[in-house]
Amino acid sequence: MEIIAEKTEEGVIERRVDLVVGGDIVPGIHWLPEGASAPHPTVIIGHGGTQHKRAPNVLGLARKLVRRCGYGVVALDAPGHGERMTDEQRQAQAELLSRRQGARLAPLSEERIRSMIGAATRAESEWKALLHDLGTNPDWADGPFGYWGVSMGTAFGMPFVAGEPQIAAAVFGLGALRKANGAQRAVAARITIPVLFLLQWDDELMDREAGLALWDALGSREKTLHINPGPHVGIPLFERDDVISFYRRHLES
Amino acid sequence: MEIIAEKTEEGVIERRVDLVVGGDIVPGIHWLPEGASAPHPTVIIGHGGTQHKRAPNVLGLARKLVRRCGYGVVALDAPGHGERMTDEQRQAQAELLSRRQGARLAPLSEERIRSMIGAATRAESEWKALLHDLGTNPDWADGPFGYWGVSMGTAFGMPFVAGEPQIAAAVFGLGALRKANGAQRAVAARITIPVLFLLQWDDELMDREAGLALWDALGSREKTLHINPGPHVGIPLFERDDVISFYRRHLES
Repeated sequence: MEIIAEKTEEGVIERRVDLVVGGDIVPGIHWLPEGASAPHPTVIIGHGGTQHKRAPNVLGLARKLVRRCGYGVVALDAPGHGERMTDEQRQAQAELLSRRQGARLAPLSEERIRSMIGAATRAESEWKALLHDLGTNPDWADGPFGYWGVSMGTAFGMPFVAGEPQIAAAVFGLGALRKANGAQRAVAARITIPVLFLLQWDDELMDREAGLALWDALGSREKTLHINPGPHVGIPLFERDDVISFYRRHLES
Repeated sequence: MEIIAEKTEEGVIERRVDLVVGGDIVPGIHWLPEGASAPHPTVIIGHGGTQHKRAPNVLGLARKLVRRCGYGVVALDAPGHGERMTDEQRQAQAELLSRRQGARLAPLSEERIRSMIGAATRAESEWKALLHDLGTNPDWADGPFGYWGVSMGTAFGMPFVAGEPQIAAAVFGLGALRKANGAQRAVAARITIPVLFLLQWDDELMDREAGLALWDALGSREKTLHINPGPHVGIPLFERDDVISFYRRHLES
């Protein structure tokens, strides 16, 4: 992991980092508390679709976890997102976002879902490389590790968390169990760490029943589901307080 | 409100109080932080069926709210509960509880539900009298007020909260919207304050769908549903942390 740039703002060190994974450069950000002494827990944030490593909700959550809890936080640009978008992807996303102006999000196409599953495999290997790199320097992080990712962050994050014993607690949400998808159900069943799962009751992308079913399919003994009214992009900010309580229970002791 | 006895234990003043409501003596407990200066928020706890004003979960929550938040807390014996049980009721409850040994709770009978609705009306007038009495002494409580009650505490508490503008935030749960019960739906719709609603996914007394429907029927703009795996009596203790975050958002400012 190479440190590209660093700045400190109101107690939060923010480092632009580059990972090299399978020949690709994966840009990320590593937030750390100013003057921190290791060890401290670190949370990996998986951003949502069309978002990136420094999208406002990622940045807001990262700063809160650093300032309130003294944790480290890392976010990478997912494949095809942020600095990793091709001009074609950038154009397609601009069109998608302009169509969304003032409108509710349209359901995902089957093609988009298939493409995301492919990208999830790459994201998984990138997060594994991230954990490896973080472990090479005790000032960076030596665990325990948490995961936070909703929507695409859940689609990509569940396979990663299911196969990664270093993750001790995970926040998922805005996801749905796709019908007749035995692989997705099997992944959920393999997750046995404590999970906080966030759903939006009026989510225009995810079916309510399928959202409940995905939470229900998790293998975890401790798994709490929080549901709020409102659309896909609209998890209330106060849920961050409960996220912090959740990480405090499971990443500190 | 007459103070019958008082003791102080680890920072918590515990006062046995008697209210006189419509000729009945209603025994209650008022917990206060030692050395507290008014004003401070006060939470009214409505206990569950077969429980009483000092049942272990009531006492545990009360002490936590006093110690962690500096709130006052009040719990009354509901009609037919605690010190207000007749010998006949005591006998029936002992039989009920002995049948429950090691077994899951049996569903409530229609007769039991009708009897509870009658008792709810009395409980409502008793809590209103409690709010009045608390208001007569600024050292006791002058608001804001919160409510906490699950199971019977929700069945009794919803009509009370719907008609009582002094309650600023309420925790409900382990309840269900009974089919073709327009009155219950209307009560839920009249509740517009922030609500935290706790359900148990494997509740043997309440149907899942009916539990979701009761939360859905609430008129509140802010209403968060927390669901955990497990039976009716089994809300995880960590939910108390989220209850505290919820009250802090709405009873302090």
